[in-house]
Amino acid sequence: MARILTTPIQKRFADIDPFQHVNNVSQQTYFDVGKVDYYHQILGEEVLLGRLRIITASTATSYCGQIRFGDPVRVTTTCEKIGTKSITLLQQLLVGDEVRSESRSVMVAFDFEAQQSFPVPDAWRERLLRD
Amino acid sequence: MARILTTPIQKRFADIDPFQHVNNVSQQTYFDVGKVDYYHQILGEEVLLGRLRIITASTATSYCGQIRFGDPVRVTTTCEKIGTKSITLLQQLLVGDEVRSESRSVMVAFDFEAQQSFPVPDAWRERLLRD
Amino acid sequence: MARILTTPIQKRFADIDPFQHVNNVSQQTYFDVGKVDYYHQILGEEVLLGRLRIITASTATSYCGQIRFGDPVRVTTTCEKIGTKSITLLQQLLVGDEVRSESRSVMVAFDFEAQQSFPVPDAWRERLLRD
Amino acid sequence: MARILTTPIQKRFADIDPFQHVNNVSQQTYFDVGKVDYYHQILGEEVLLGRLRIITASTATSYCGQIRFGDPVRVTTTCEKIGTKSITLLQQLLVGDEVRSESRSVMVAFDFEAQQSFPVPDAWRERLLRD
Repeated sequence: MARILTTPIQKRFADIDPFQHVNNVSQQTYFDVGKVDYYHQILGEEVLLGRLRIITASTATSYCGQIRFGDPVRVTTTCEKIGTKSITLLQQLLVGDEVRSESRSVMVAFDFEAQQSFPVPDAWRERLLRD
Repeated sequence: MARILTTPIQKRFADIDPFQHVNNVSQQTYFDVGKVDYYHQILGEEVLLGRLRIITASTATSYCGQIRFGDPVRVTTTCEKIGTKSITLLQQLLVGDEVRSESRSVMVAFDFEAQQSFPVPDAWRERLLRD
Repeated sequence: MARILTTPIQKRFADIDPFQHVNNVSQQTYFDVGKVDYYHQILGEEVLLGRLRIITASTATSYCGQIRFGDPVRVTTTCEKIGTKSITLLQQLLVGDEVRSESRSVMVAFDFEAQQSFPVPDAWRERLLRD
Repeated sequence: MARILTTPIQKRFADIDPFQHVNNVSQQTYFDVGKVDYYHQILGEEVLLGRLRIITASTATSYCGQIRFGDPVRVTTTCEKIGTKSITLLQQLLVGDEVRSESRSVMVAFDFEAQQSFPVPDAWRERLLRD
């Protein structure tokens, strides 16, 4: 069972749109904050900056409820699936116990010098599955 | 057969991330530019500001190729499906003939005063299907 | 002597530009985070949402050094001057003891219903000068 | 007399804040769009990407009026002053004939390899002063 990492979000005034709630696009930046924290704490920061990086192949997000400026919001990030060449991350934006949006991201291991994908390294697997 | 609307995108320097390409989140703002243009030209701008609005229930995006700062990029928007209470928009970010990313958005008709969804109005249907 | 409020900043990956540092525009959002925290903790949140609000008349920012993604950055906010109809806030972005950028904002008390500026209320003055 | 370059701005929905106008920070991105266009058309794009680049030392912006989502807005950019090691750009955001905000930016010529400023090259001077 993979670990769930929780990251509190610091909202910015410009995240709020004319409907007085956090814009959908700003919610995507919240998921990004969760991912970067996940790389830092669990997967290893070299996946952001090294030769062998992780890139986003696809994302799918469901918006279930609004997030207001005053709502304390946090993002949870966990690894849902490890495939041969990809990792699926599951993330939620939560206010209290309510899920306000949920996003799945398929991340691909990518060699920036060779400009092609490569199998998920064993070292990544171990860190993803560690308790 | 629904119309395809093409909107050229004006990039901003802050759209570019440390990998020297347009950040995924910024690509979401490009899809947003396409949607707003689509409401303006085809669906009617009241869906953004009226009592009966359109809201995003979910989005799913595939990133197929990178967009560099110098690439002239445009977004296409079309209606793929009209359901009872929802509309599915299909959008692509294109550089020349290449699709760099593709996104499907399920949009729901929402009554802001009653705070509940409602069936897609016939007036919207007609405009979506007009040649 | 007015209080100095310190707010730690949560950076976002999209804040970083192709030069591998925090974009100038993103630094402006960091100053905004400091201002909102200042209103919340010191001036009273009604200045953001009430009939009598505070609006930005002008800002002047000096960029003294770069902020990298790994730098722990915080913003300080203090009231430098209270005029008849305006308040000057002084803010700094700091990494350790180094000032990386500094910004002065002239804020004006504004009546949104009458659509005109008004003298800084005594209640605001007291809170700004409280230890 | 230096040339004035005019660049129409493509607004984005997320530029609009809860006050139903273009957020101050988003206005800074509009000034950025003007600057990049100015480098492209007048100063030479190598100032963004070459070894000898242009960086922002300071900006000062006055906000004179609101910009609504429906307002067609354009940014003008011109060189106000060329110093020994710096260039001052003057920019305005205009809706019709009205100036909604105005910004001065002191730009410094910077050698990224040596990590120090250098005198404004004659080639830059000529291009800035060309009719």
